[in-house]
Amino acid sequence: MNGGQEKLRFESDYMEGAHPAILERLVQTNMAQTPGYGTDAFSESAREKIRQACDAPEAEIHFLVGGTQTNETVISAMLRPYQGVIAAATGHIATHEAGAIESGGHKVITLPQQEGKISPEAIRSCASAYWEDGNREHMVMPGMVYLSQPTEYGTLYSLREMEEISAICREFRMALYVDGARLAYALACAENDVTLPDLARLCDAFYIGGTKCGALLGEAVVFPRPQTVPHFFSIVKQRGALLAKGRIAGIQFDTLFTDNLYGQIGRNAVHMADRIRAALREKGYLQPMASPTNQIFVTLTGEQAARLAEKVALSFWENVDADHVIMRIATSWATRAEDVDRLIEWL
Amino acid sequence: MNGGQEKLRFESDYMEGAHPAILERLVQTNMAQTPGYGTDAFSESAREKIRQACDAPEAEIHFLVGGTQTNETVISAMLRPYQGVIAAATGHIATHEAGAIESGGHKVITLPQQEGKISPEAIRSCASAYWEDGNREHMVMPGMVYLSQPTEYGTLYSLREMEEISAICREFRMALYVDGARLAYALACAENDVTLPDLARLCDAFYIGGTKCGALLGEAVVFPRPQTVPHFFSIVKQRGALLAKGRIAGIQFDTLFTDNLYGQIGRNAVHMADRIRAALREKGYLQPMASPTNQIFVTLTGEQAARLAEKVALSFWENVDADHVIMRIATSWATRAEDVDRLIEWL
Amino acid sequence: MNGGQEKLRFESDYMEGAHPAILERLVQTNMAQTPGYGTDAFSESAREKIRQACDAPEAEIHFLVGGTQTNETVISAMLRPYQGVIAAATGHIATHEAGAIESGGHKVITLPQQEGKISPEAIRSCASAYWEDGNREHMVMPGMVYLSQPTEYGTLYSLREMEEISAICREFRMALYVDGARLAYALACAENDVTLPDLARLCDAFYIGGTKCGALLGEAVVFPRPQTVPHFFSIVKQRGALLAKGRIAGIQFDTLFTDNLYGQIGRNAVHMADRIRAALREKGYLQPMASPTNQIFVTLTGEQAARLAEKVALSFWENVDADHVIMRIATSWATRAEDVDRLIEWL
Amino acid sequence: MNGGQEKLRFESDYMEGAHPAILERLVQTNMAQTPGYGTDAFSESAREKIRQACDAPEAEIHFLVGGTQTNETVISAMLRPYQGVIAAATGHIATHEAGAIESGGHKVITLPQQEGKISPEAIRSCASAYWEDGNREHMVMPGMVYLSQPTEYGTLYSLREMEEISAICREFRMALYVDGARLAYALACAENDVTLPDLARLCDAFYIGGTKCGALLGEAVVFPRPQTVPHFFSIVKQRGALLAKGRIAGIQFDTLFTDNLYGQIGRNAVHMADRIRAALREKGYLQPMASPTNQIFVTLTGEQAARLAEKVALSFWENVDADHVIMRIATSWATRAEDVDRLIEWL
Repeated sequence: MNGGQEKLRFESDYMEGAHPAILERLVQTNMAQTPGYGTDAFSESAREKIRQACDAPEAEIHFLVGGTQTNETVISAMLRPYQGVIAAATGHIATHEAGAIESGGHKVITLPQQEGKISPEAIRSCASAYWEDGNREHMVMPGMVYLSQPTEYGTLYSLREMEEISAICREFRMALYVDGARLAYALACAENDVTLPDLARLCDAFYIGGTKCGALLGEAVVFPRPQTVPHFFSIVKQRGALLAKGRIAGIQFDTLFTDNLYGQIGRNAVHMADRIRAALREKGYLQPMASPTNQIFVTLTGEQAARLAEKVALSFWENVDADHVIMRIATSWATRAEDVDRLIEWL
Repeated sequence: MNGGQEKLRFESDYMEGAHPAILERLVQTNMAQTPGYGTDAFSESAREKIRQACDAPEAEIHFLVGGTQTNETVISAMLRPYQGVIAAATGHIATHEAGAIESGGHKVITLPQQEGKISPEAIRSCASAYWEDGNREHMVMPGMVYLSQPTEYGTLYSLREMEEISAICREFRMALYVDGARLAYALACAENDVTLPDLARLCDAFYIGGTKCGALLGEAVVFPRPQTVPHFFSIVKQRGALLAKGRIAGIQFDTLFTDNLYGQIGRNAVHMADRIRAALREKGYLQPMASPTNQIFVTLTGEQAARLAEKVALSFWENVDADHVIMRIATSWATRAEDVDRLIEWL
Repeated sequence: MNGGQEKLRFESDYMEGAHPAILERLVQTNMAQTPGYGTDAFSESAREKIRQACDAPEAEIHFLVGGTQTNETVISAMLRPYQGVIAAATGHIATHEAGAIESGGHKVITLPQQEGKISPEAIRSCASAYWEDGNREHMVMPGMVYLSQPTEYGTLYSLREMEEISAICREFRMALYVDGARLAYALACAENDVTLPDLARLCDAFYIGGTKCGALLGEAVVFPRPQTVPHFFSIVKQRGALLAKGRIAGIQFDTLFTDNLYGQIGRNAVHMADRIRAALREKGYLQPMASPTNQIFVTLTGEQAARLAEKVALSFWENVDADHVIMRIATSWATRAEDVDRLIEWL
Repeated sequence: MNGGQEKLRFESDYMEGAHPAILERLVQTNMAQTPGYGTDAFSESAREKIRQACDAPEAEIHFLVGGTQTNETVISAMLRPYQGVIAAATGHIATHEAGAIESGGHKVITLPQQEGKISPEAIRSCASAYWEDGNREHMVMPGMVYLSQPTEYGTLYSLREMEEISAICREFRMALYVDGARLAYALACAENDVTLPDLARLCDAFYIGGTKCGALLGEAVVFPRPQTVPHFFSIVKQRGALLAKGRIAGIQFDTLFTDNLYGQIGRNAVHMADRIRAALREKGYLQPMASPTNQIFVTLTGEQAARLAEKVALSFWENVDADHVIMRIATSWATRAEDVDRLIEWL
């Protein structure tokens, strides 16, 4: 299915199965008998390792299946009916979750973004505007801030930004929730200064992405402080987000958090992405977003795009004008150096 | 984790990972690159094999992750806001899904059951009562009938019953939906006369269970007639039920429907269950439900239950009186003959 | 529209407009200018009078429009997503609200009833069963008890029953909510020993019915303890239950709670109902429910029902057998003695 | 409550009770006995008159209570789960309904506005963008366009604009829904060229506002083509939007549509507003929005606003800069010439 004649594929970071260490572990443990629903010893071990990695000994950790599911389950569990969630206009919950948050009853309050990020000032201004408005009881109360780290554009919030946003959230009694679908690619990045313990300290909830970071599937929701959402287990069950064989997620996260695999799994992706970025610069392509992680955005003429499309699958991002498009190139833990060589050659 | 000294476990049919053929296939295909969201060739192949097995060449097939998720997604997609779903009082959606159906906005209209089944007469009577009631516009319209095959008590609807219920559904314009979480254990059972093509012919939707029938996870929703639910893909996405790596379900179902593995995977379970049932009869235990599939129900004195509990994990079902409980014994594709020997010895 | 030749109508207690005192007050105040949304002085005055009548100086009071709306708004505001509400199988929320509670995401957990009432024992047993069940996290948690006073069958909970139920609710941390759609007919009844201050003491929320008790429309929700539901105003708005001209409800309730009109408005209804009940007894009719309030239930042969139907509109309740039906006769604050005379004559 | 010493009030168009003709009719009909839920003869008569006024003999008409309730009931009834509704960023559903539409499960897709209006081009571009996006199945499908006539800024869509938008809606299979909360003030306006028959011809649903146009409460939903939403009655009931005494709305709309009262009731408001607008122009005030209906927007310095606030209640609209605010002046059917004289004098 991926022979030499086949197209190169750089269209996403979830094109393969799982990191070999994970698959091996699933094979090894396959016939072990465990109770269901994440009460097994594998899941408990994974939770303990994540608590340690986050320096959050009290954290409650739940394993869900996918990103959209995790976002809607956590957000609707944490908000009251009259509250909405602030997000970048380009945030995943605002664009590519088919209205999941609204389906759960809540407005996504979108703010203008720059390179996928929203500024502390914009957040403060949105919260202030609500609380200063005499008609606020007829309006949606901002009850949470949603950030993606890295963002949908591959960019990163700095520790300083994250700290400012966290402080604003506490001032206005909004929860801070971070979507870490691609968190491994942030953690592997030299520019990144936000660690797992930082997230645990600054957020009310966040999730550590598995699906796009080497697992078959699975996302680990972390509530750094216990009882943030009482009976969250039942909410997960009700939302259809509870795996009967909870161990399938547990074993994978246990593997990802053994010997710091999660901290390292993104390095290949970032290294390969850096090579592609450098090649693009050298060859004079415009890179409209300064992403330092595993996503690369490049502006192509229609002709360039068509020529490339014959040999390599990229992801269409948006039209710039009649003659130019922005395409996304994604690398992952599984990206092979020889494929990057060929891609660079063809650019 | 399952050494000789450990307890025997007969508490459920989802205690192991996956059938070895499935795991092997996941390993073989692991580094193949595919597009996401179930658009890959593995998933397409699985769909085609299921269409053939169901003798339903037009069927639309979607792979979801778990049973509760599948039930809530299908039911809320098929019902209009003012409709509810008829189910046995013991139906999974009525008892053990944490209110998922109501969370999606719909009433579960429960009918009395016998050994987990509802009768065609009771269904007709419920539908008639609605349509004859002068106040019906103030009431919940029965819009669907939900059956489990096998039921939560391991019992089976006969083809004749299924046909009668299907005819009633069509008469009263209700959808018929069958929850096949344990369908492999029905198909493997001598008493069963309802085939996959029968289900495709009689139902508006049903699902073929993977999680409890040998897969790591995954359920295959079958709409025998196309366009039963337009844009179901978006609904699945919105509900958080869409796997980014859709292939994980696709590969598993492709394996299950290769060389009729799904038709055979339940045989061991039923054979082992038959041995246990025979032993219970011989030893004079009361079996309150006449289940012919992979679930066995037995009435024990408190003392018997306590004695057994030291050596073998069973599932508590319900208290009969101060001195007696009903326990459930479950077998699966993975149940080992030597464990059954020991269980019988200890009974 | 109600000339001498016309049919008598005893089919419901909401067949007329409003009590004349209310209409007069609406006329008097018509051109007064007030701010909207219940912030006007009339509404504030009504709230203060209700607080006094309930001996609940801290109570928060909101005026909504109708009963179903009130039930769904209060219930969904007070429950967490994983909770359901216990009700009699004949409770209004379980039968004649078109699935409003489920539409709001919550299961109605129905208990068997006697004459429209559920017993403290049944409630305790339902709550215990949940908390003792090892699988309870997969089930709907009983989070509230819903009672109607009077019930849909016109019967009354005694103070002793209400106190027992309240104690059970507190023991199991369930809210107690009383639907008082016809509360005036309870308060006017000699058999009744539950006062407004009792309700305020024993409930977490209840509503004082206007629509069926002399108002054009309107129900007064009482939260005896402040901050029971923070931001309830926004929830009311979101549910579409907030009147722009809030004064329309405020003026009506202010009138109803001036000079104890609400305490007296039901007397005529109960007196007329008593006369009808006595006549039915005398004439040998069977009254299947011992309702002491403004609803009378009578068993008729098909022939009797048909004969009466030519002259008087009653409400069909249910079929008893092929030859007998139960019909409901309802009186109200507006029922005229001469109409009752004629009804009795024709019985 | 409105003596000579009191402040003038121009803060909204729902500060009084009802037009005297309506109140008189409620008094006259008060003791007539009718069946409930809008099945009475008054409501039927009102429906027939509205059908005639709209030149829509097949139209289905339902009376609901308030605007937010009407919007959420109609919108959620007409959309499928994966669809959202396009609205101006200043649309009532996008700003001041406390998230009601999202609470019903649907995204409000906001478009930039000019004087409260969205352009046909912007609507077309939004719909096209969805249908041309390769990822559209992960996105919210635009399923409806929501317009307010007049808008929240008092401006009007021309017939030509309305026709263009209607054509775009049909091209992209989106429903067109018009919120006519203040429709009487459009119909009374010389600049307006959109009639009730035009709305019936161009829309899939619209509502004729009562609350802000002379009624105590009530909005008339018109579906020009029958069976647009099957079982809409049950949906209204489920949403808590069904009046038990449906006649209360029916009598009011019957009065409003007798002798074209609805067509005339806005004239006083527009006339008074025109006088205020002329005076503002003369005195050199900036009017930032060119509203021709009953709402007037004026830019004031902080000092001017403070001075006026001592004598007259206006509605705060928004801050322009540190020194200027926009205030809204609203007139209505009830606005008195002498109050306008005094207002103009004080400006």
